[in-house]
Amino acid sequence: METSKIVGYQGVPGAFSEIAARSFFRGFEHRAFETFDAVVEAVQSEEIIAGMLPIENSSTGAIRAVYALLLQAGLKIVGEEYVPVRHCLLVKPGTELNRIREVYSHPEALRQCQAFLAAHRQWKQHAYLNTAKSAERVARGQDETIAAIASKRAAEIYQLEILESEIQDQRTNTTRFVVVAKLPAEDIELTKASMILRVSHQPGSLFEALGVFTEYHINLLKIESHPAKEVPWEYDFFIDLARTADEEAFQSMLGELSKRSLEYQLLGSYTANSLNGNE
Amino acid sequence: METSKIVGYQGVPGAFSEIAARSFFRGFEHRAFETFDAVVEAVQSEEIIAGMLPIENSSTGAIRAVYALLLQAGLKIVGEEYVPVRHCLLVKPGTELNRIREVYSHPEALRQCQAFLAAHRQWKQHAYLNTAKSAERVARGQDETIAAIASKRAAEIYQLEILESEIQDQRTNTTRFVVVAKLPAEDIELTKASMILRVSHQPGSLFEALGVFTEYHINLLKIESHPAKEVPWEYDFFIDLARTADEEAFQSMLGELSKRSLEYQLLGSYTANSLNGNE
Repeated sequence: METSKIVGYQGVPGAFSEIAARSFFRGFEHRAFETFDAVVEAVQSEEIIAGMLPIENSSTGAIRAVYALLLQAGLKIVGEEYVPVRHCLLVKPGTELNRIREVYSHPEALRQCQAFLAAHRQWKQHAYLNTAKSAERVARGQDETIAAIASKRAAEIYQLEILESEIQDQRTNTTRFVVVAKLPAEDIELTKASMILRVSHQPGSLFEALGVFTEYHINLLKIESHPAKEVPWEYDFFIDLARTADEEAFQSMLGELSKRSLEYQLLGSYTANSLNGNE
Repeated sequence: METSKIVGYQGVPGAFSEIAARSFFRGFEHRAFETFDAVVEAVQSEEIIAGMLPIENSSTGAIRAVYALLLQAGLKIVGEEYVPVRHCLLVKPGTELNRIREVYSHPEALRQCQAFLAAHRQWKQHAYLNTAKSAERVARGQDETIAAIASKRAAEIYQLEILESEIQDQRTNTTRFVVVAKLPAEDIELTKASMILRVSHQPGSLFEALGVFTEYHINLLKIESHPAKEVPWEYDFFIDLARTADEEAFQSMLGELSKRSLEYQLLGSYTANSLNGNE
């Protein structure tokens, strides 16, 4: 398959990263990589046309390692995708709920299904490296007393039966993914931009920088401060903006911003996903 | 032991939460609870004098569930503690590195030690529900070919030998914990405050509210936006401030803030920890 039709994600088939890649890129090959770094390297070497990386979760915030990787690699964000984290109870076809004795999943997924599992206290819980692998574990075995907690997609891949759907405690836990590529987005409507802004640690310095957005009537969609790693007393802000399609006005705003901050890095402009994280 | 000398944490002895509790509260009993909710309930019922809860991690951001729990329970933040996440390779005394065949830990800890584990590719990795439990697993068995990745404290508790220290990839990953109590802090120097601020989703609304801090020469130590769960198009900001010790000036600032935002909730005022997350 030609490079231009292959996208990469970290994990294994059935993982939420694969779900994001399949949802955004229909008609493409979706290739699994072991680490975030491997996805980024494959984009850089043009083995794949784009990568799909998780960048924030509605309950835990930004995935800083991915921001660091994007800065370091010089890749651009060209799109975004939101995937609701929905867990199912998966079993070998024919297994009945009252025969289950053990359940496998990633510890975070087990934690996210506390209420459901509390109703089945007699089940022994086993932690596994990821949800899709635990589905594979159930599919591989002959034992009809074990279940996995994983995605609906994992059920399809490993031909398991879904005994219960949406068993997670919170209905609204969502992971946001970004599409990263070597070159900026072209020929799409640019309605959102992501950047990292650095300001000094003094009263008013963030206020001063944010004033630029207000003057240009630009709405802040997200802001998250992080101490700058290498520089004490400077702060990085991970910022998402509702940007204007007018490139000239946007560039003029950036020019003003560079005067009123220590520095900024534009990570990319792209089309905001309709599921805007406000779910 | 009297209630006033017992503090609670979520997890098991040897977990980073216990390390935080022991570091902040010397000469106290440190009691383990299964869930965050159970810690909060024990504070409310006065079974314990305070709870130690993780609130943010330097690589993943705020732990939203803990913010939600504090709001719901009406508890106050009265202190904070930073714990560097440092992993060790633990074995039964006498086990040599070249005899190890399997390693147990929490998946997140395994992920945080990727570079170290890449140098030992032949080891089989097993995911466990938490790092301290995997140390217990190694201590309990007779097998001298298995190791655990856990804290130095877990080595002490389970009488294991530390074969390698600081095996995590990042030297600077830190978890911030807050001390929560039924009543606000008294008789300590108040240098920091935490709050949740809600503003409407319009250009300039955050800028307007932050102007109050600038006018009062108050420095922002942290800001993180989250879409308000129940109200579309309103945003909550998790904010930490370098507050003034002058209570009157602080109250006057809060009064002004309430005029320029939809609402705010003060989570507490306390003494900033010297390890201020800028490590």
